[in-house]
Amino acid sequence: MKAEIIAVGTELLLGDIVNTNSAFLASRLAQLGFDMHYQMVLGDNPEHIIAAARTASQRSDVVIFTGGLGPTDDDLTREAVARAFSLELVVDEVTKKRIAEYFRCRGMVCACNNAKQAKVFARGEVLQNENGTAPGLYCNTGRTVVILLPGPPHELEALFDAQVAPRLHALCGESIRSVTLKCFGVPESQLEVILGEQLKTANPTAALYAKRGEVHIRVTAKAADETAALELCRCKAAEIRALLPDNIYTDDERTLAAVVVDILKEKGLVAASAESITGGRIAAALTACAGASQVFHCGIVSYTDEIKHTMLGVKAETLRTKTAVSAETASEMANGVRINSGSDWGVATTGYAGPSGAQVGLVFAAVSSAERTVVKQFNFGSMRSRENVQTMCLMNALDMLRRELLGIENDGAQVFTAK
Amino acid sequence: MKAEIIAVGTELLLGDIVNTNSAFLASRLAQLGFDMHYQMVLGDNPEHIIAAARTASQRSDVVIFTGGLGPTDDDLTREAVARAFSLELVVDEVTKKRIAEYFRCRGMVCACNNAKQAKVFARGEVLQNENGTAPGLYCNTGRTVVILLPGPPHELEALFDAQVAPRLHALCGESIRSVTLKCFGVPESQLEVILGEQLKTANPTAALYAKRGEVHIRVTAKAADETAALELCRCKAAEIRALLPDNIYTDDERTLAAVVVDILKEKGLVAASAESITGGRIAAALTACAGASQVFHCGIVSYTDEIKHTMLGVKAETLRTKTAVSAETASEMANGVRINSGSDWGVATTGYAGPSGAQVGLVFAAVSSAERTVVKQFNFGSMRSRENVQTMCLMNALDMLRRELLGIENDGAQVFTAK
Repeated sequence: MKAEIIAVGTELLLGDIVNTNSAFLASRLAQLGFDMHYQMVLGDNPEHIIAAARTASQRSDVVIFTGGLGPTDDDLTREAVARAFSLELVVDEVTKKRIAEYFRCRGMVCACNNAKQAKVFARGEVLQNENGTAPGLYCNTGRTVVILLPGPPHELEALFDAQVAPRLHALCGESIRSVTLKCFGVPESQLEVILGEQLKTANPTAALYAKRGEVHIRVTAKAADETAALELCRCKAAEIRALLPDNIYTDDERTLAAVVVDILKEKGLVAASAESITGGRIAAALTACAGASQVFHCGIVSYTDEIKHTMLGVKAETLRTKTAVSAETASEMANGVRINSGSDWGVATTGYAGPSGAQVGLVFAAVSSAERTVVKQFNFGSMRSRENVQTMCLMNALDMLRRELLGIENDGAQVFTAK
Repeated sequence: MKAEIIAVGTELLLGDIVNTNSAFLASRLAQLGFDMHYQMVLGDNPEHIIAAARTASQRSDVVIFTGGLGPTDDDLTREAVARAFSLELVVDEVTKKRIAEYFRCRGMVCACNNAKQAKVFARGEVLQNENGTAPGLYCNTGRTVVILLPGPPHELEALFDAQVAPRLHALCGESIRSVTLKCFGVPESQLEVILGEQLKTANPTAALYAKRGEVHIRVTAKAADETAALELCRCKAAEIRALLPDNIYTDDERTLAAVVVDILKEKGLVAASAESITGGRIAAALTACAGASQVFHCGIVSYTDEIKHTMLGVKAETLRTKTAVSAETASEMANGVRINSGSDWGVATTGYAGPSGAQVGLVFAAVSSAERTVVKQFNFGSMRSRENVQTMCLMNALDMLRRELLGIENDGAQVFTAK
């Protein structure tokens, strides 16, 4: 079955607020097994709402309207939808009482224009709203199921989960589930070649989404129930993982940093950071994860040669002969912070972030343990912005640490063995 | 003139991501003086894209498409729009070279399907993308201006501001200009009272936008030309500044951290950070600014008592008697990093980030100079998420440093005088 969302609100058209309601509804409808081909945003204009309602009802089985159910004159959704489908509006005494009670409990006076919110379709169901005044409305017109929900997200979400979802589930009978595989270090175009036929199946499907520095592979399956849909996803996800065993770092909500923190926790190890170009981003990414204090005790941001020497023990000779941006300096930084802080692992970065300078984007990242230090050189010069260079360096450093922890080859790395 | 947005992407229809691109574009288009009546979201379906493109072009002067410009087979926007408006697609050699270079710099192979992204409309302009592979496209079909932008928000936003906004401004005629005053430390509801009538004028207008931890006051004026519009904005901005002299930290694009970096540069001073609860965020915020290396040499993330003691010189007795989360520890951290790194200023944070624990949200921030150390206590317990607590602490610490540097009172701070 097909569903469609029509969000009404001038604040959406002006970009004053982000349309989180449509994302919420779309996600819930997908889980319920509905297909969706269209979402619309309109202003509080009755002609536009009527035209959109009719268009939507011709191509979708369920049309959900959000917003424009308030008490003021420019809240027109209820009236416009009634006209679009020739539905009569009547005052619902139960709703009228509930709204009066709502105000009484809060010690407020019920303005007379709130009576407007007690108007409901003469046929259909009223979905009482426990978090606000405007009720939701549900009406099967015969051809289309029309649903009206209030705009405030907490009202809409509570109404949908408690009263709309069960009604739609009864209509639909099918379940959709998704699994997302997060993949680092392979560009989208190359992934398409590697995955080939895996991206062309009909159920489950697999699709690529480019994110900053990484690509998400989303596997989605339809089945009679949730368990069967999830099982289909899992089988396909396993096939895809087998094609990219070293690059897919998780199949859940975690970030790359959270995965690194969890690996350290499992192994009972502690890591430390020594950052020049990333300027604290590695420490910030790791400490963003709850429980980071178990596995991360110390980070040093060394933005000058002197601090690299005094706080991290990088040799003056190395800084003089190789400069601060070199594999040798990165290696000594990672080693230095590991030893000085009494940690098991050290991760370090050094490079030119720009925006100006001849070698902008030249970066070295290093990961050190008691056994060995690996260093990789990158050139992010074409990324131009300082932020992009710093972010790419952060992510590559975290992925290098992940690989060392798991015993996965760090391709193209220089290896320094502990003396 | 009327503008319309068509966002293409299955991930939007599935509710996997929120449509922030449409909010960004809508806000920018409103600033440019365009009216907007419709926004649409479609999947990667050529027939749907063609039909929507034609409908939109009949009711709007400018139609902006986002998403679906990637290298893979399901990226169909470019081809569908070309068909909708009978535009020829040709390979652009400049774009092809740029994409090849983009991959070369990253040490990656350019898969043959990336050539697809080098296809552009035979007439119209190519908007080269500095942050990704797919270029933007701009074409005046005579009846409608058609603009295609890539889906990743950082690519779209940079392209819009640098290359689309000036072209649309030239189209529109009337000049609208805005000035944003960034205000820290006063909640929105209180600002409404302080600003009073200033928020009710018709031209220029002033509006409040609550951001994380701060409020932006946006002043917007319309006039025949840019200079006149800007002059109107400046007069009103000056009146508003006079009402909030200590809290408005900038009227330009700079972040709070960038303002702090610039003050340090002007005064020729160097600051250092000692972070516990913020875990590297202060260092990362300062080093995000170009030229940070002039004013920031050293940051230490001390996530254990031991590191606070050994690297920052916090006294064992202080840690034992006052605990790590105390005004005294914050003060000694700020002092310690300032002295150990040979900096003029030290800024420090300590607290409970959560998500669990009895005192989640209790935070101390300190700023130290050779003369004195100020410490403020905060309670962000109601912010719930770890990220919110860390961000609020970061921003307050930076604002404390800004105030100390400028000689503005840090209200409610404990003051420790250097012995």
